[in-house]
Amino acid sequence: MLKQHNLVIPTRGRGTYDITTKVQALVAEGGVRTGLCHLFVQHTSASLVLCENADPQVRQDLEAFMARLVPDGDPLFGHAAEGPDDMPAHVRSILSKMELCLPISAGRCALGTWQGIFLWEHRTHPHQRRLAVTLHGT
Amino acid sequence: MLKQHNLVIPTRGRGTYDITTKVQALVAEGGVRTGLCHLFVQHTSASLVLCENADPQVRQDLEAFMARLVPDGDPLFGHAAEGPDDMPAHVRSILSKMELCLPISAGRCALGTWQGIFLWEHRTHPHQRRLAVTLHGT
Amino acid sequence: MLKQHNLVIPTRGRGTYDITTKVQALVAEGGVRTGLCHLFVQHTSASLVLCENADPQVRQDLEAFMARLVPDGDPLFGHAAEGPDDMPAHVRSILSKMELCLPISAGRCALGTWQGIFLWEHRTHPHQRRLAVTLHGT
Repeated sequence: MLKQHNLVIPTRGRGTYDITTKVQALVAEGGVRTGLCHLFVQHTSASLVLCENADPQVRQDLEAFMARLVPDGDPLFGHAAEGPDDMPAHVRSILSKMELCLPISAGRCALGTWQGIFLWEHRTHPHQRRLAVTLHGT
Repeated sequence: MLKQHNLVIPTRGRGTYDITTKVQALVAEGGVRTGLCHLFVQHTSASLVLCENADPQVRQDLEAFMARLVPDGDPLFGHAAEGPDDMPAHVRSILSKMELCLPISAGRCALGTWQGIFLWEHRTHPHQRRLAVTLHGT
Repeated sequence: MLKQHNLVIPTRGRGTYDITTKVQALVAEGGVRTGLCHLFVQHTSASLVLCENADPQVRQDLEAFMARLVPDGDPLFGHAAEGPDDMPAHVRSILSKMELCLPISAGRCALGTWQGIFLWEHRTHPHQRRLAVTLHGT
């Protein structure tokens, strides 16, 4: 069995957005019991990560770490057509990756207890982010 | 053909653990000749990486690099419930990723000559790490 | 349907090489309409990334960022058998990853408008890089 869906996730600007419930609902509807769920964000300034899902401070710290590692307005960057967060958003997306593949077991993404699925918006302004979701298995 | 297995890897604390032989054995037993082998660690403070497999110094240098990039006890981090290595372990896992997908050819993971598969424990204390392994193909 | 191909990409040394056209051609020939395209580089000193495909400055900035993050000849590194770019190439590959999985829709990799597929050579000298491409779907 192989199914594909498109998801659109609206963001309110930079930060992480929990999409675990949305993804688990798609998997449940899809009817795959054992297999893989592939998530792909069709942009170069947003990414998909697994992160601790219990303490929101973890995601604040993650954001603070990335902001320090890839500073907005860094004079190293020549590409700033869309502002000081433009090139940092590309670097942040490459470091955190635009795709995620998760095992499906017993009809659900077999996440660990503390794993949540997050869309990470790297631009400071709100965006509509398109995701391609591919489910396959039996 | 689609098969799923669970692996438990005990760690002795922070560092990289070669799981290449274990994974290749699972693939050989699974009977998939051509396809993909997906590895997923069900935690947010350990990761899975491909690394040079010949000189152990490479993995020492990798660990030293990551320790400098994401220092334990960094005052940037507010989340330190489980100690100074808690939040760094989450960041390190996100930067090095919790999953790996490998091609299977001729009944084996088609690794390059110098590629080994490593579980990277980011916590300083020993842990039992659960992996979900999904094999599919023909 | 499941098909595997090998690609060899010659590089002229450090930098990013656009392989989007090559990959889309393989997908078109392969005949998979809906599914996944998995790309795997069989080396530990080159990687595969999705990057903005319109302004070449983006990839120059990306290279500059990585060169600053993981400096050649860093005294932190003990492994330098093949020169000052040896260990940095391993770290850069692990941070940017050696594999990529892309959705196939309507017989093509369903990339976003600004996403290109790039092989990132991290060694300063030219190399021949082997890729395993696995297509599966219907």
